[in-house]
Amino acid sequence: MATFGLLEYQDAGPEVRAVYDDIMATRQTDWINNFWKAIAHDPATLRRTWESVKQIMAPGALDAVTKEMIYVAISASNQCGYCIASHTAGARKAGMTGEMFAELMAVVGMANETNRLASGYQVEIDERFLPPTNSSGRT
Amino acid sequence: MATFGLLEYQDAGPEVRAVYDDIMATRQTDWINNFWKAIAHDPATLRRTWESVKQIMAPGALDAVTKEMIYVAISASNQCGYCIASHTAGARKAGMTGEMFAELMAVVGMANETNRLASGYQVEIDERFLPPTNSSGRT
Amino acid sequence: MATFGLLEYQDAGPEVRAVYDDIMATRQTDWINNFWKAIAHDPATLRRTWESVKQIMAPGALDAVTKEMIYVAISASNQCGYCIASHTAGARKAGMTGEMFAELMAVVGMANETNRLASGYQVEIDERFLPPTNSSGRT
Amino acid sequence: MATFGLLEYQDAGPEVRAVYDDIMATRQTDWINNFWKAIAHDPATLRRTWESVKQIMAPGALDAVTKEMIYVAISASNQCGYCIASHTAGARKAGMTGEMFAELMAVVGMANETNRLASGYQVEIDERFLPPTNSSGRT
Amino acid sequence: MATFGLLEYQDAGPEVRAVYDDIMATRQTDWINNFWKAIAHDPATLRRTWESVKQIMAPGALDAVTKEMIYVAISASNQCGYCIASHTAGARKAGMTGEMFAELMAVVGMANETNRLASGYQVEIDERFLPPTNSSGRT
Amino acid sequence: MATFGLLEYQDAGPEVRAVYDDIMATRQTDWINNFWKAIAHDPATLRRTWESVKQIMAPGALDAVTKEMIYVAISASNQCGYCIASHTAGARKAGMTGEMFAELMAVVGMANETNRLASGYQVEIDERFLPPTNSSGRT
Repeated sequence: MATFGLLEYQDAGPEVRAVYDDIMATRQTDWINNFWKAIAHDPATLRRTWESVKQIMAPGALDAVTKEMIYVAISASNQCGYCIASHTAGARKAGMTGEMFAELMAVVGMANETNRLASGYQVEIDERFLPPTNSSGRT
Repeated sequence: MATFGLLEYQDAGPEVRAVYDDIMATRQTDWINNFWKAIAHDPATLRRTWESVKQIMAPGALDAVTKEMIYVAISASNQCGYCIASHTAGARKAGMTGEMFAELMAVVGMANETNRLASGYQVEIDERFLPPTNSSGRT
Repeated sequence: MATFGLLEYQDAGPEVRAVYDDIMATRQTDWINNFWKAIAHDPATLRRTWESVKQIMAPGALDAVTKEMIYVAISASNQCGYCIASHTAGARKAGMTGEMFAELMAVVGMANETNRLASGYQVEIDERFLPPTNSSGRT
Repeated sequence: MATFGLLEYQDAGPEVRAVYDDIMATRQTDWINNFWKAIAHDPATLRRTWESVKQIMAPGALDAVTKEMIYVAISASNQCGYCIASHTAGARKAGMTGEMFAELMAVVGMANETNRLASGYQVEIDERFLPPTNSSGRT
Repeated sequence: MATFGLLEYQDAGPEVRAVYDDIMATRQTDWINNFWKAIAHDPATLRRTWESVKQIMAPGALDAVTKEMIYVAISASNQCGYCIASHTAGARKAGMTGEMFAELMAVVGMANETNRLASGYQVEIDERFLPPTNSSGRT
Repeated sequence: MATFGLLEYQDAGPEVRAVYDDIMATRQTDWINNFWKAIAHDPATLRRTWESVKQIMAPGALDAVTKEMIYVAISASNQCGYCIASHTAGARKAGMTGEMFAELMAVVGMANETNRLASGYQVEIDERFLPPTNSSGRT
């Protein structure tokens, strides 16, 4: 499967191998999942996507498990089967318990429900919820 | 605005007032935002939605600010303007800092990007990411 | 507003006027809503879209109000503000009561919720729900 | 499949069995479909979701088959494979004929098309379609 | 698979056969893909959908490969597995190279990312980007 | 508007100004649109997003106007008002005519329609459309 097949390490050139090596080193693992092998036919996209993911998913103001759970939330909302499977695995590896997953799904379900009640009833944004109108950025 | 207008406290019957009172007591606030006033024309939906939100958003395995951030993530992904505004306010009240919001948005953006790369490249789920096949539930 | 402005009847050529006339005759009304005026800059799209809408929305196995409600359901789910407003008006004109609207929204909200629980929990389709495998079409 | 497997009746505790019993009694059937077994690992979500579905899908101002068809419409629009399969089965059981399904799909397709024409052409909402501005709820 | 099975040429009536014949003649091919066979149980939808696709996908101001790539872009964004597969094949047949596909996917991914950054940060439309306000259509 | 306001050039630090300067130089313009000013409160996201957009939107196997039109297509499909407005302006600047826009919208509408017919009818992917099964990447 995958539109252009999966590019395995042994078949890859040095540019792709360098990304694969960094993925494995960063994630402290010895394998590459299909997503990267599928997009590796475009080394520019492979590198840019990995660099972005690496930067964004590193612990910062939010810890790793929270970030992985947000990824699962978006993927479930968007019906991306691959992403649900891979990021659920990632979240569990980062420490997500069954209870955390259950609460995550409950919030995802409820948010998707009330998103549509809000639009369907044509609810206007409350004055108090509007961002400040001064555009100086000094809020 | 709002399809059936906004049902204010003074115009509401006892069933709706009871929900409004519980919203204000639970949230330790003295006002009701438009979402509830817009759906209050259907007291059954008002009550059911509030009871579900109250149960789901209470701190548990995930804390309040994490849950509100997941709500913002879904709402931004779904382009629900009302929900983005109201839950960004809710998340900030629950402790979300500017740094946390910035990282949240970065993850939401990246997840929406890679969700489409995964589908567009028709990536097959890795064996390791598949849920266990025994259906007994004893995992 | 509208990317190319709104094409009014008096400014339109005979091809567009013919469609406008048919819209007003079919809907038994004396005005054209903005949607048609906005797309009228492309007469081919105007005609094709109107012919399709006219054919699809005519009462058949489903009556007019049910069809308008399905339109509202999809529009609310997709966060299309224009379409929610116009088809809610259309559904009310076709006989949708406040009670019907309330139940419609409740179903839309719940469907959007369980759609994400089903994907998030990676639920496999039950054997009994699979379409028959014979491809002859004689079902 | 399913992230935490499927929780069968014989493996379930009394809280889950009570919900399963109510599902079977309400639907006058002797089996439980995978959706419920998959989310049953979180009994709170199982109960809340079932109680909501039971309340919302009961015949009221809209009959059962109309509600199931709206569910199919949303599920097809959202690309939820499980939900399309299960609610198409549910709608047929509730009386949806092939003709009704065909018209349903035609409306779903057209609504998804015009939702994007409306947004893409940046169509402004007609004055006549705006909800009344008095916020008293006395409409 | 397919809800009502696939309607093969030899089992089809003259109305469906006429559409199948036109599909094969227009596309200069000798087979019909599953999409048409699945919707053929509703000859009105089959004919209307084919006539629209035939008209819209014909080369005009945009050439055939550009149109097929836009189709792939939307299908990947919407997570429609069938449509991704069929229109990727269609785009390649129309001349899309691997490099073009890679750039297409990069744009699709980036657009999905910035769509959510724009909504999540609640960015207001710049004055310069607003369509002209005169509604005469004389732009 | 915008959650954290808009960060103007004169209020920005050197890191943000460097990105603003590069945006203006690359686009051969003397102003910055709101999107960048809104996300500039997070300089890391500002830089990463701009670097990605700059790389992806540069002419390559696809020319600039095609890339901008794909951006419009996704934005219209996702109902992102800001992105529709800004990228429609961008596409026109890059050479999109009214005829090209009209055909673009027609394809976007049709793709959104048939995406739902394909899912709603549960159409199985044709053998001929499946990617090759060898995973070596030597296709």
